[in-house]
Amino acid sequence: MIYFDNSATTKPFPEVLETYVKVSEQYFANPSSIHRLGGEVERLINSARRQIAESIGVKSNEVVFTSGGTEANNLAIKGIAIEHQKRGRHLITTEIEHASCHATFKQLEKIGFEVTFLPVDAQGRISLTDLERSIKDETILVSIMHVNNELGTIQPIKEVGEMLKRHPKIFFHVDHIQGIGKVPLQFDQSGIDLCSFSSHKFHGPKGCGFLYVRSGVALSPLLTGGEQEFRKRAGTENVPGIIAMTKALRLTLLSMEERMNDMIDLKEFIKDQLSRLDPVQINTPERGSAPHILNFSIPGIKPEVLIHSLEEKDIFVSTKSACSSKSDAVSRVLEAVGYDFDRASSAIRVSFNFENTLSEGEIFVEALKEVVSNLQKVMRE
Amino acid sequence: MIYFDNSATTKPFPEVLETYVKVSEQYFANPSSIHRLGGEVERLINSARRQIAESIGVKSNEVVFTSGGTEANNLAIKGIAIEHQKRGRHLITTEIEHASCHATFKQLEKIGFEVTFLPVDAQGRISLTDLERSIKDETILVSIMHVNNELGTIQPIKEVGEMLKRHPKIFFHVDHIQGIGKVPLQFDQSGIDLCSFSSHKFHGPKGCGFLYVRSGVALSPLLTGGEQEFRKRAGTENVPGIIAMTKALRLTLLSMEERMNDMIDLKEFIKDQLSRLDPVQINTPERGSAPHILNFSIPGIKPEVLIHSLEEKDIFVSTKSACSSKSDAVSRVLEAVGYDFDRASSAIRVSFNFENTLSEGEIFVEALKEVVSNLQKVMRE
Repeated sequence: MIYFDNSATTKPFPEVLETYVKVSEQYFANPSSIHRLGGEVERLINSARRQIAESIGVKSNEVVFTSGGTEANNLAIKGIAIEHQKRGRHLITTEIEHASCHATFKQLEKIGFEVTFLPVDAQGRISLTDLERSIKDETILVSIMHVNNELGTIQPIKEVGEMLKRHPKIFFHVDHIQGIGKVPLQFDQSGIDLCSFSSHKFHGPKGCGFLYVRSGVALSPLLTGGEQEFRKRAGTENVPGIIAMTKALRLTLLSMEERMNDMIDLKEFIKDQLSRLDPVQINTPERGSAPHILNFSIPGIKPEVLIHSLEEKDIFVSTKSACSSKSDAVSRVLEAVGYDFDRASSAIRVSFNFENTLSEGEIFVEALKEVVSNLQKVMRE
Repeated sequence: MIYFDNSATTKPFPEVLETYVKVSEQYFANPSSIHRLGGEVERLINSARRQIAESIGVKSNEVVFTSGGTEANNLAIKGIAIEHQKRGRHLITTEIEHASCHATFKQLEKIGFEVTFLPVDAQGRISLTDLERSIKDETILVSIMHVNNELGTIQPIKEVGEMLKRHPKIFFHVDHIQGIGKVPLQFDQSGIDLCSFSSHKFHGPKGCGFLYVRSGVALSPLLTGGEQEFRKRAGTENVPGIIAMTKALRLTLLSMEERMNDMIDLKEFIKDQLSRLDPVQINTPERGSAPHILNFSIPGIKPEVLIHSLEEKDIFVSTKSACSSKSDAVSRVLEAVGYDFDRASSAIRVSFNFENTLSEGEIFVEALKEVVSNLQKVMRE
């Protein structure tokens, strides 16, 4: 099997599942229980929190565990909007955010917030000038993803953060879900107030994630109840999930530098090979894109048909974002980039993990050539 | 080890952890991906949804998976309040709900909703007359827990549901988190519109739960994004958690009838033994309480001290709700029942699972006698 759909989800590391089971068996108590078993579990969570904080260079009390990336994005955006709406009801984001941010802004629009959706250029990148021009007295939040999940385009987070230092009352949220472990992000230099992470994108368990919330940033909790997570997120902690996610993050970051070049080689190889095929149009920008995502269109061939033909050869790729794959045919992201209907509705995304090899890339390219050639023949008949 | 803190959390069944690992390894794809691997995972989730629906006697499209009981309660209450606020902003609940409901109503009060918190009698039970009197034209939701998590008191859910049939525009939410697998609840006769469940209370994995939402009930999603869960709850599904939870529910319900009597025997034995001890006051009502919870006070002895003395003998019990155990000394629930400060601040809760035995009960009673006697000696010195 060749699994090239790692932006949708990754396979958990075996060590991560071992940890999950061990913690579930030995540390099953509720960390809020005041007896010794509860105390042991509480210490375990605190140590995971410290480890995660250290690995991304923030403080331990700035890490809030959530049920995943969608909850982290919802908590950041709604949490700031609801908490600070008295100061202003204007929010700024981009046209190409993930559904868990995009739909959240749409929901806030319905209840009276004004949202600016910044356009992107042909590379899928926002302009700092556009961003600064859209700022008003009423602006309370700027939310921008680091790495786009369909194109792989990297946004100028550090530059945005530096510009926002001139607007100290605006909170800055970054969706780092596709970036972590793939594209470094400097927290201390980027003026980030909130940052989202999802465990199953870095070989951790599903149903787990976390939100970085800078010390002193107040936000209205989405889930109210017990006093867990510094009163920012109620609910009994997903203890085994948290500990297993912490292990997955450590393993991911450990192997990151070592294996990143292999991933870039794989991406460049496939891009180079596909560029030579007449019908293929490469959508991922030449410069400033993540090492693990390559997006291309084959106008005239329905991507579902291509995907099902490839899966017969045990190769798995995707169209656009898994979270929007069953709705419209056209990618909202590729439309925003300015592509026409044919190109925006015929996109294929291949996305890698550290274990994918160059020889998998070779097999994929040959299979794609064969499938495309067969489909073209069928269409000509 | 004698673990009598099962209302805080339960130990996952070994079979449940096996399922978790198997699904994580073999069905790791994203169910929203349109390739074959995604399709297989989607079918797995649908089959789990059907199984859960059948086991509680509802339809498959009425089961919405969440990250746990807190999210289920928040989604039910906020989801209805936000969606139907144009029809009215009055909500009715009780004084003794779990923190994940209580705090949610408090949060809604802050943003302009009016909430009636119904009082309870000396058994911790609401009055139907009180409830009906509190209904106004603006009432859109009644939310009542089935089994109280501190006292074990069972509320008259069926009777409330029947009364509410005369008020068809009011939604009825039941927090069944402490009841499932312990106290039967008839969905078809009780007029329930929404009902919350938490996996880790019935030997399933933490970080998982579900909300029953009756067909046709519209609610505003808390988590927006992808189109998962009938657009009621966005986010990549916690696939292994969901499948493992489904297994836990099946095992729990399978063994329920068979082992329920053992649990009642254990509870009655301990209650009988403790009633003979002079300083002990039994708080759990004689009639109409769940088989797995026994609450008692020993005024004059700090419950933390008692808990830590018992844990030295490898016996684990709790004070009140784990989700509120680190805040105030006094139990909000016992205060609502009308107990004075001494009694409401000295409560101990023991809570059982199917595996606890009568001989564990005997050991517990002897240990408690010894600990209380020692503590009383110390205090007299």
